[in-house]
Amino acid sequence: MSISAKALQKTAPDQPFRVATIERRDPRPDDVVIDIRAAGICHSDIHTIRNEWGEAHFPLTVGHEIAGVVEAVGSDVTAWKVGDRVGVGCMVDSCGECEECAAGQEQNCLNGSVGTYNSTDVDGTITQGGYAQKVVVSERFVCRLPEALDFDVAAPLLCAGITTYAPLNRWGAGELKNGAPKQVAVLGLGGLGHMGVQIAAAMGAQVTVLSRTLKKEAASLELGAQRMLATTEENFFSDHAGEFDLILNTISADIPVNRYLRLLKPRGVMAVVGLPPEKQEFSFGAVIGGAKAIAGSNIGGIAETQEMLDFCAEHGIAAKIETIPVTEADAAYDRVVAGDVVFRVVIDTASFDAVEAV
Amino acid sequence: MSISAKALQKTAPDQPFRVATIERRDPRPDDVVIDIRAAGICHSDIHTIRNEWGEAHFPLTVGHEIAGVVEAVGSDVTAWKVGDRVGVGCMVDSCGECEECAAGQEQNCLNGSVGTYNSTDVDGTITQGGYAQKVVVSERFVCRLPEALDFDVAAPLLCAGITTYAPLNRWGAGELKNGAPKQVAVLGLGGLGHMGVQIAAAMGAQVTVLSRTLKKEAASLELGAQRMLATTEENFFSDHAGEFDLILNTISADIPVNRYLRLLKPRGVMAVVGLPPEKQEFSFGAVIGGAKAIAGSNIGGIAETQEMLDFCAEHGIAAKIETIPVTEADAAYDRVVAGDVVFRVVIDTASFDAVEAV
Repeated sequence: MSISAKALQKTAPDQPFRVATIERRDPRPDDVVIDIRAAGICHSDIHTIRNEWGEAHFPLTVGHEIAGVVEAVGSDVTAWKVGDRVGVGCMVDSCGECEECAAGQEQNCLNGSVGTYNSTDVDGTITQGGYAQKVVVSERFVCRLPEALDFDVAAPLLCAGITTYAPLNRWGAGELKNGAPKQVAVLGLGGLGHMGVQIAAAMGAQVTVLSRTLKKEAASLELGAQRMLATTEENFFSDHAGEFDLILNTISADIPVNRYLRLLKPRGVMAVVGLPPEKQEFSFGAVIGGAKAIAGSNIGGIAETQEMLDFCAEHGIAAKIETIPVTEADAAYDRVVAGDVVFRVVIDTASFDAVEAV
Repeated sequence: MSISAKALQKTAPDQPFRVATIERRDPRPDDVVIDIRAAGICHSDIHTIRNEWGEAHFPLTVGHEIAGVVEAVGSDVTAWKVGDRVGVGCMVDSCGECEECAAGQEQNCLNGSVGTYNSTDVDGTITQGGYAQKVVVSERFVCRLPEALDFDVAAPLLCAGITTYAPLNRWGAGELKNGAPKQVAVLGLGGLGHMGVQIAAAMGAQVTVLSRTLKKEAASLELGAQRMLATTEENFFSDHAGEFDLILNTISADIPVNRYLRLLKPRGVMAVVGLPPEKQEFSFGAVIGGAKAIAGSNIGGIAETQEMLDFCAEHGIAAKIETIPVTEADAAYDRVVAGDVVFRVVIDTASFDAVEAV
């Protein structure tokens, strides 16, 4: 007996969303059934469903920023009970046995982690994401939502939050250096960047937002940055050479890597989480001088995701969002691509009730 | 009263070496005078003197792999006494006060460290290197040579040793992972690579040497590697994908960066110390997937250089060298460039005695 749920579905990249009824698997002994209350729209959803990252499996429901309430649990589940407030992020399964899983880095599972949507599940079916009323998922891939976090502002943390928290944490944004806060630059102030600024500031870093213009200066300061700088200002790269311990690059466009490396102090790190389509050019000399590094980061493990949620709740931070009903998802996609949202769009899944499924 | 010393000097890139008499500064209160016993030939010496790294200051004496004996000390020197066996590497001064100097990273001095040769000294003169009978240097830039290390095999450690030790140390080559040794690849088996192999193996890593051919396989194994692999073998990059925790890239040629990143395990690091002339291309996606990093490294601080010397002595490792008299320096340069030396050439400075200065 499977579980029916209304879901936003696309049948092809160029078709509008429709509300369909999808079947979730009958819960296994280690599964929990989650009643979804909010689902964030991530740029990855758009890349996937527009076939920009390869041919997607249609019909498809995307969404990997999921917040909700446990509605039922399998017979072996002990960690969760009905009524628990929970979240699910970018993955829903992994082998659990390789050295990466053992190290709590399930996203790097050597046998391949299972993505929350458009991914081949362990039973051979294609996973369907969180723009839906319900999801059934292994208890190992569920995180607890602290009471302080409402569903809608918590949902984006499951992707945008952990994606920025993990590199800031790994590269010591919150550590003191000679007794002083680290200097952290966040490049780009979209869905990822606005979380990076808040998290880095809450860790204790002094944060500078870098963007082409100062359009979002007031918002930057409100999010906890000390200042915003426009990268298009004359002599920007020489005037600010050697200022930062860490640059968190959240943009998906090509950047002049060598020039950004110049902004780093010795032993500084440029952490990259945005995925430009083209190859980037840089000189080994630009990392050798000053012993600098370019470090990629991809979401984070489940334990670290929980740590991030607790950290956000403790520091009173969450995603800054606008909420939409399911009927406005197509329009929201266009606005996300245009950069015309502040800063994340979240689907209120209660709005499924008002729409008949096809 | 300055100190005269015979030195190998070039008056122009295309002129042969000549033995000239150079004047070393009168020792300051914090200086030591070193009677040089051996001086290694580093590829950087050749790049510099051939103007491949910009116009050098001629007439010039190069050499920054210096081993010798303290011959005199300034009035304020307490750390060293006449007769001490010592070494000097790539730098001879720094501000001593900036946050990098305070952190023992004098090579990254924010006010500019002073190179051992071809560099503007604090008194405005151009520094002259170690292909000479004597050098006068601040006591802060002197390291102790353990008794176990002969002068000639110790000299190259001051550059090739620390250049490979520092990144291996920083990126944990000697740490266990799930109770097992780390997998370290050393790309290139020249002056740097042959030290990297020995040091990584002594740290406890399992070492693989990567090169275009297996010509140096026997030498690789003798130096402590588990195996050697030819990067030109068919399907090399897919057959060995995900095998290494750390790749130490010691070569100065362009490499297909994305393909090498594929050889890394998740969270693996490619440490680069070789300086190819061209820009390199890579995809951010190749570091984002698996949260990998490309990390530069430039020599190391004085304290870490001392640590490296002690480490080498303790583990019975040193440079594998051939010794030449001063009269053979030009011929040795050609052989170094041709890769026709095993693995480092060291000038026996006692041979100055047999040559009249111009």
